[in-house]
Amino acid sequence: MRRWNGWGDDANDFPLKASGLAFLRDTLGPGRPLPDATWEQVLARVPASRLPAHPLVNTAADIRVRHARGQSLPDWLAMRSGEFGVFPDGVAEPESADDIRALLAWAAEQDVLLVPYGGGTSVAGHINPPAQEKPVLTLSLARMNRLLSLDRESQIARFGPGTNGPAVEQQLREHGYVLGHFPQSWELSTVGGWVASRSSGQQSLRYGRIEQLFAGGSMETLDGTLDIPTLPASSAGPDLREVVLGSEGRFGIISEVALRVTPLPEHESFHVAFMPDWPGAVALVRSLVQARVPLSMLRLSNAEETRTQLTLAGHEQLVAWLERYLSLRGCGEGKCMVTFGVTGERAPSRRLLADVLRRIRRAGGVNTGRLLGRKWEDARFRSPYLRHGLWEHGYVVDTLETSVDWARVPTMVDAIETALHGASGEGEKTHVFTHLSHLYPQGSSIYTTYVFRCADDYATTLAQWRKMKTAASEAIVAHGGTISHQHGVGRDHAPWLAAEKGARGMSALQALATHFDPQARLNPGCLLQEK
Amino acid sequence: MRRWNGWGDDANDFPLKASGLAFLRDTLGPGRPLPDATWEQVLARVPASRLPAHPLVNTAADIRVRHARGQSLPDWLAMRSGEFGVFPDGVAEPESADDIRALLAWAAEQDVLLVPYGGGTSVAGHINPPAQEKPVLTLSLARMNRLLSLDRESQIARFGPGTNGPAVEQQLREHGYVLGHFPQSWELSTVGGWVASRSSGQQSLRYGRIEQLFAGGSMETLDGTLDIPTLPASSAGPDLREVVLGSEGRFGIISEVALRVTPLPEHESFHVAFMPDWPGAVALVRSLVQARVPLSMLRLSNAEETRTQLTLAGHEQLVAWLERYLSLRGCGEGKCMVTFGVTGERAPSRRLLADVLRRIRRAGGVNTGRLLGRKWEDARFRSPYLRHGLWEHGYVVDTLETSVDWARVPTMVDAIETALHGASGEGEKTHVFTHLSHLYPQGSSIYTTYVFRCADDYATTLAQWRKMKTAASEAIVAHGGTISHQHGVGRDHAPWLAAEKGARGMSALQALATHFDPQARLNPGCLLQEK
Repeated sequence: MRRWNGWGDDANDFPLKASGLAFLRDTLGPGRPLPDATWEQVLARVPASRLPAHPLVNTAADIRVRHARGQSLPDWLAMRSGEFGVFPDGVAEPESADDIRALLAWAAEQDVLLVPYGGGTSVAGHINPPAQEKPVLTLSLARMNRLLSLDRESQIARFGPGTNGPAVEQQLREHGYVLGHFPQSWELSTVGGWVASRSSGQQSLRYGRIEQLFAGGSMETLDGTLDIPTLPASSAGPDLREVVLGSEGRFGIISEVALRVTPLPEHESFHVAFMPDWPGAVALVRSLVQARVPLSMLRLSNAEETRTQLTLAGHEQLVAWLERYLSLRGCGEGKCMVTFGVTGERAPSRRLLADVLRRIRRAGGVNTGRLLGRKWEDARFRSPYLRHGLWEHGYVVDTLETSVDWARVPTMVDAIETALHGASGEGEKTHVFTHLSHLYPQGSSIYTTYVFRCADDYATTLAQWRKMKTAASEAIVAHGGTISHQHGVGRDHAPWLAAEKGARGMSALQALATHFDPQARLNPGCLLQEK
Repeated sequence: MRRWNGWGDDANDFPLKASGLAFLRDTLGPGRPLPDATWEQVLARVPASRLPAHPLVNTAADIRVRHARGQSLPDWLAMRSGEFGVFPDGVAEPESADDIRALLAWAAEQDVLLVPYGGGTSVAGHINPPAQEKPVLTLSLARMNRLLSLDRESQIARFGPGTNGPAVEQQLREHGYVLGHFPQSWELSTVGGWVASRSSGQQSLRYGRIEQLFAGGSMETLDGTLDIPTLPASSAGPDLREVVLGSEGRFGIISEVALRVTPLPEHESFHVAFMPDWPGAVALVRSLVQARVPLSMLRLSNAEETRTQLTLAGHEQLVAWLERYLSLRGCGEGKCMVTFGVTGERAPSRRLLADVLRRIRRAGGVNTGRLLGRKWEDARFRSPYLRHGLWEHGYVVDTLETSVDWARVPTMVDAIETALHGASGEGEKTHVFTHLSHLYPQGSSIYTTYVFRCADDYATTLAQWRKMKTAASEAIVAHGGTISHQHGVGRDHAPWLAAEKGARGMSALQALATHFDPQARLNPGCLLQEK
């Protein structure tokens, strides 16, 4: 069953290995486990619902707890401490666009706020019910989770907005197709959530971001349905797809999504190589992506992330052997790991792999074959579970990310890592490492993970996180990065959005929000901060 | 010097060949040349300017004539008859964003309407001054025509909005880069115009549409500057680039454009092959693009276009020989021409060409080598001149275009061609032919050319055009196509925009227009029809 206070299914457990724990103790000092609230304790705190009755609305305490929080670090601390603060007053699970329209009309009539809910995987506070005098209804799309149609000729599949990653790929696979959108949240996150928050998947290099996959669909607004036809391209005015993308529930509820799909590839493999140092590694991956080498995935870990990954992997003997081998080949201290994927028809894939390995060798890198690539593949959706293993031992982990043009990448990585170290608690250390996960000819995303010890209590731990998150966010916008390349804005990033959009951009977005939702009933506080 | 009443430089002349004229006489009957107005006659009709004086504003009659019309067929008829109807009251040629801001402020203060003008190549009435009681100032960006900066690492070049195609490529070539945006209007159209009208170039298969090339920039609005940072990608809310793209001067004046550029390719070649029939040819090109074969250009002419192109080419002996050869190889009556481009590094280009030729052969097609490809390359920007050659002999030519998903392509081609034939004048014929010019995994653009005889006078000729244009536009929207894949909306397509955007989409666009320009001073009537 899905965990109410953490990530994923409770049948899945990935405890921290002994070597990993030793590494953290060495680096950060012994952990400080904090006590978890029980399910019963939390249930007992759920207040009475303020919602009037409606046949589609469930006001039971358990469902309200399960839809109260996402997966940000503040959400985690709230779920673990039991201090949720705000619960939705009820949860509706519509089964059709008609149901959604009925709920929207009812919410307007009853002066109720609506929070749309896909997979509940937001790490930026998208689905947290706002603390307002008005009652809050969370609208879960979980039951609208099916493949509705497939046009093989045009390679367009229509889905209900609540279809999650595995359900998307399983339903497509039966027909011989793949979507290829694999965010780390894939196990739980949904089509509608991907569109609403502009998400990006691990193989965006081949399949594109959700912006490129989203061909059209429907959004139910407070004043009727916005239908966006599927068109391969159009010059007829501003693109309304791009207004729905990233709208984060502020303009309406996405009720149907048409996606561009691809026949299942004949071949797919992942590989790992190492480069002697960071500057050379950045130059290599930049040259690959600027030469349009058609890899399906490309990721570069900096030296600290490389070291951490190898240490946390366990298999100490094997890793020691690997490190000796790499060292002999020129990749010692400071080496950086390059992970890449090859996907497509068989013969071109073979040629492509040979070409990439040649380029890596020429740049001074060392290929280590498919073993580590297979490990990456096995673990590709496992990272979110890592928080459990750390938490148990009194550590917390969070991630943050941005993207910038290539000219700014090295400076930005330094700035973010320096900001996080600098904002560590008094006498505390933070373990920080980074990878480039989504590469473009123009620039790259930057994805930083940071681990620190819990403080003595929840409030101090949260305050410590906030200090670090703020420092990193300020560094990001000061160096011209986006406040999010793949997690969206939500409530947590909203204070920094204006740095990217500018005053004129913010007022245009606000004008759209006011147009679609003059009373600010739809997910208020998300994306745009209320005045 | 640039023609005041037609296309391009008057040093360029491409008269209709004798074989082409004979073909048209056979098909449509003898042409009916209409008398052209002289420059002096037109100048004499320019009324006094209603504008107050401003140092940046030129109210001379000649410059007002030269900025009064674009290149649509109604524009052509206006320029040739001398019946312009409306002239701008003056033309300003700002040299900086400061100048633009000053002009915007002045226009607001003086209650003046503004029409932005790039290369004046619109075929949809974008730059035609509206007939209103308020004076109209045309704001030409022609002097803001330089490469402003080049970031080689991030492959980003910044340009003034008035830089035209040849100036873009020449300035980039000096540094070893190419933009690769080649609309047919390339000789005259500008960076700002491409962005404002969402244009697409002949090699969009490699370089992308302007949407993919436009990395950011600045738009001057009536209430300050909207600056859009260059970011490789962002999940931070709706994408404001996509609101500027296609805004057609309604929200502000684009003052700077950052574009994604590419190092000059080692190799580029164009090739022509033939397929025995239309259904097989459509299946071939669809399979190429859906298999992501990385061609830089791909175009498929239907049987009538193929026949017309071969006839109009002249070289009767050569063509007769070619047709015999093709016929022996199975491409006789009903054959369709496939034109494609190979661009990139030398070795992969060689492999790619071999792969494509194999696929064509397997599909029953016949490759004819590079000769016809070179002819296409030589003539790639010449089509707009064709109108001159036809006009001289009493014929007019126009084109229209849309895009749809693959499942709808054959029906749409039929519907457009049938509509044009059906709307021919009493006792008149229309020569109609079509190609697919921009191909996507999801679908294709459809580009139809139609030629008909002038009527006995200008008014009847215009009425006849309007009847055909309306019939074709209705067919396009009835079959779910966009009203424009690459020409934009302007004033001519505005009546059909709602069919694509829907009531809810139109009201959102109107809300944006009202937000940016509450008094409707900026290019009123363009994109959105005034209420």
